[in-house]
Amino acid sequence: MFGKLFENVRRKAPLIHCITNYVTVNDCANMLLACGASPVMADDCEEAAEIAGICQGLVVNIGTLNTRIIPAMTAAGRRANELGHPVVLDPVGAGASRLRTETALLLMEEIRFAVIRGNMSEIRSLAGAGAATRGVDVNLADRVTEENLAKAVAFAMEFAQTSGAVAVITGAVDIVADKDKAYCIRNGHPVMSAVTGTGCQLSALTGAFAAANPDLPLESAAAAVCAMGLCGETGYKRMGDMDGNASCRNYIIDAMYRLTPRQLEEGADCTLWDGEVRRP
Amino acid sequence: MFGKLFENVRRKAPLIHCITNYVTVNDCANMLLACGASPVMADDCEEAAEIAGICQGLVVNIGTLNTRIIPAMTAAGRRANELGHPVVLDPVGAGASRLRTETALLLMEEIRFAVIRGNMSEIRSLAGAGAATRGVDVNLADRVTEENLAKAVAFAMEFAQTSGAVAVITGAVDIVADKDKAYCIRNGHPVMSAVTGTGCQLSALTGAFAAANPDLPLESAAAAVCAMGLCGETGYKRMGDMDGNASCRNYIIDAMYRLTPRQLEEGADCTLWDGEVRRP
Amino acid sequence: MFGKLFENVRRKAPLIHCITNYVTVNDCANMLLACGASPVMADDCEEAAEIAGICQGLVVNIGTLNTRIIPAMTAAGRRANELGHPVVLDPVGAGASRLRTETALLLMEEIRFAVIRGNMSEIRSLAGAGAATRGVDVNLADRVTEENLAKAVAFAMEFAQTSGAVAVITGAVDIVADKDKAYCIRNGHPVMSAVTGTGCQLSALTGAFAAANPDLPLESAAAAVCAMGLCGETGYKRMGDMDGNASCRNYIIDAMYRLTPRQLEEGADCTLWDGEVRRP
Repeated sequence: MFGKLFENVRRKAPLIHCITNYVTVNDCANMLLACGASPVMADDCEEAAEIAGICQGLVVNIGTLNTRIIPAMTAAGRRANELGHPVVLDPVGAGASRLRTETALLLMEEIRFAVIRGNMSEIRSLAGAGAATRGVDVNLADRVTEENLAKAVAFAMEFAQTSGAVAVITGAVDIVADKDKAYCIRNGHPVMSAVTGTGCQLSALTGAFAAANPDLPLESAAAAVCAMGLCGETGYKRMGDMDGNASCRNYIIDAMYRLTPRQLEEGADCTLWDGEVRRP
Repeated sequence: MFGKLFENVRRKAPLIHCITNYVTVNDCANMLLACGASPVMADDCEEAAEIAGICQGLVVNIGTLNTRIIPAMTAAGRRANELGHPVVLDPVGAGASRLRTETALLLMEEIRFAVIRGNMSEIRSLAGAGAATRGVDVNLADRVTEENLAKAVAFAMEFAQTSGAVAVITGAVDIVADKDKAYCIRNGHPVMSAVTGTGCQLSALTGAFAAANPDLPLESAAAAVCAMGLCGETGYKRMGDMDGNASCRNYIIDAMYRLTPRQLEEGADCTLWDGEVRRP
Repeated sequence: MFGKLFENVRRKAPLIHCITNYVTVNDCANMLLACGASPVMADDCEEAAEIAGICQGLVVNIGTLNTRIIPAMTAAGRRANELGHPVVLDPVGAGASRLRTETALLLMEEIRFAVIRGNMSEIRSLAGAGAATRGVDVNLADRVTEENLAKAVAFAMEFAQTSGAVAVITGAVDIVADKDKAYCIRNGHPVMSAVTGTGCQLSALTGAFAAANPDLPLESAAAAVCAMGLCGETGYKRMGDMDGNASCRNYIIDAMYRLTPRQLEEGADCTLWDGEVRRP
C-alpha cells in the first residue's frame, strides 16, 4: 500500500507551501523535489493565505520562529483548512522556550492539523506533560526505546485523540498514531541525528504524502516516515570512510530522488501496534 | 566573445550585493564564488544603500519576499542606479501572489533594471499578461518550446522594449532579448528543475557577468545563461547511479568553479534569432 | 593539549545557541553536529534569553544583520554573561556598513565576549582603525602575511586588551591572542576562502570549544582554529579533478565529523609568538 501512496506523490506532484525555519529550508525544498513534489516557501502575512490557496498542502515549522510570521502561519493554515488541504505541524523546539510552546499551542487552537510531527519532548510539551526539550533535540529522559514503547504508543494515541491530528513521534522507534491505532516503524539510522534538518525534511515529506493522499492521513504519514527512514539507511550505507554528516545529508536526499514505490513497499519496516495500550 | 566576458568576471572579481530569498541564498553565494565573484548579502534598509555603494552589481530576488525588505530593495536599487551599476531582478513567484506581482512591478517603476530573469509565467505576469504562476514554477501552458518559440521571442523583445531591461526567459529553450535582437540558448538539462535554486543562481551569476561587463548587458546575460546551462550539463553527466538532485546541486556549482573561458566559448549553444518576429 | 580540549567537546556535547546569518546557518549547524556539539538557532527577542539560558554557549554573528534581531542578540548575550557561559562574536562585514560597525561596537559594550573572531578588516574596524572591509572579505591592504605578522600580532594583543576578549584574526596566518600572549596558526588552505561560510563555521566551532572548556578561552579558540584549518586541508586534499567549492564545502564538514582528538593534537600547526611585540 505504501508503494501506491508514493506513486500518488510522484504522479500528482503536489505543490507544498512551507512556512519553515531558515536553517534547513533548502534541504526541505530539495527533499520535496526529490520525492516528486514542488515546494513554495512564503512566510509574509500579505501573501501566506493566497499562496496556501494555490497549493495542495501546507507545512508549518516553528524552528527559528519569529513573531512576524505567526500571523502568516495562522492565515495560511485557515485557508488550507477551508480548502480541505492537509496541514502538517512541526513544533521544532516546543518545550525549549515559552514562545515556541505557546505558539505551537496557539496554532493547534487556530488550525486543524492533519499531522503533528516531533520528537517525544516536543510532543510531550504540547500535551502539557511538562517536557524540557534540549534545544531542538529530544531530552534524554524522553527518548522512545523498545523498553518504553508501550507507554509511548499509548501517549501518542492519547495525543492524537486530544489534538485531532495524526501524531508522529520520531526516535529510535518511530510511532505514527491516530486515536484508534498506531504503527511502529523501525527504519532509519542513528546518523540521521547528526544531520541537521532530517526531522524538518520528514515533516515536509509528510506534507507531500498527505497532500497526494488526502483521505489517508495515518497511512500517508507512516509511508513518509518509512520513506525517510529508508533514505537514511541508504545514505548511511553509501558513506565511505572520508564521508561525514555533510555528505550523508546529500546522500539522504539523493536516496529519495532514486527511491521507487516498489522499494518503499518492500523496505518499509512498519508494524501495527497490537500490544496492550497502557493509557497514561 | 563569451569567453572574454567570463575572463572579465574572473579578473575583476566583482563584489555582488544580493537581496535574495533564504531558501537558496547559500547556493547563490557559492555560485558567485565559483564564477570568480564575491557575494555580500544585506537586506536591512539601514545598510542596503551603503552596501550597494561598495559593490559593483546588485541582484534583487523576491523569493520569500517579506514587506520588511522591500524598502531595502528600492534603496539599494536606487543607489546602484545612481552609480551606474547593473541591477538584476529575479521576480520569483510573480503571478503566484498579488504581493509578489505588485512588488515586482513597483520595483520596476522605482529601479532601472539591466536584466530581468524569470520563467515565462513570471515574466508574463509582469507584462500584465495575466499569468498564473504555479508557485515558483512555470505554468504548464506557459512553457517555452521549439513549437511556440517564435511567439515567445516576440514576447521577450516586446517585454524588453517596455521594461527597458534585457529580458531573460528560461525554459527548455532560453531566450535572452533586448528590444532589437534575441538569442536562443539550448544549453542546460531538465535535471536542473529538480534542484532548488538553479534559477536564483543564474540570476546571481547574471549579476556577476553584467557587473564585469557593464557595457554589454545583452551579451553578458547570454553568456551567464550559457555558462549556467553548461554547468547543468556537466553536473548531469557527472551523476552516478546513486546520485540525485542533492549531489547534482553540488556538481553544478563545482562545474562553475572548474569552467574555463575557453570551455564557455566552445560549449555555448547560443544562436541569434533570425526567424520572423511575430509581435504579439 | 588541543586533543584534550576537543575530547571535552565530544564528551560534553555542549548545546550552542547561534544567532547567525541565513546565508551559512545550515553549515554552522552541521559543523556543530560534526564536532560533537548540538546547535539551536533562535533569533526572536521573545525567546533569545530563554534559549541562551538552556545552552552552554552563545555565538553572535552579524552577517545579514537586521535591526529586528539586535535586541535578541543583546538579551541572549546578557543572559549568557549572567550564567558565565562563553559568548563569541563574529562581526561579519564590520567596516562595510555603518550598521554593522556600530552594531558590533554596541554589542561589545553590552556583552562581555569570550572571543571575537573576524578577518583583519573587520577587527580593525572595531578597533577604530578605520578599515574599509570589502563586503564580507578582508581588504587587500589589511591581509595578514608573514611579512606584516609582528605588527598584526601586536594589534591583536592590543585589541584583546582593550576588548577584554580573546582576539581571533584569521587570514593566511591566523592569530589567536589575549593581552599577554599570542599564537600563530598555519593550518588551513586558500580554497577555504572560495567556500562561503568557513569563517562563520569557525566562529560556531569556537563557541563549542569555548563552552566545553570554559576556563581556557585562549587555548580553546586556538584549538578550534587549528581544527578548522586541518579540516580545510583535508577537504582540499580530497578534491578530485571535477570537484569545486561546493564539494569542498561538504568535505570540510565531513573532515570535522571524522577528525579525532589525536589527529588534532598532532596536526595542529600552532606556535607561541615569541618575536618582538611591536605595539602599534
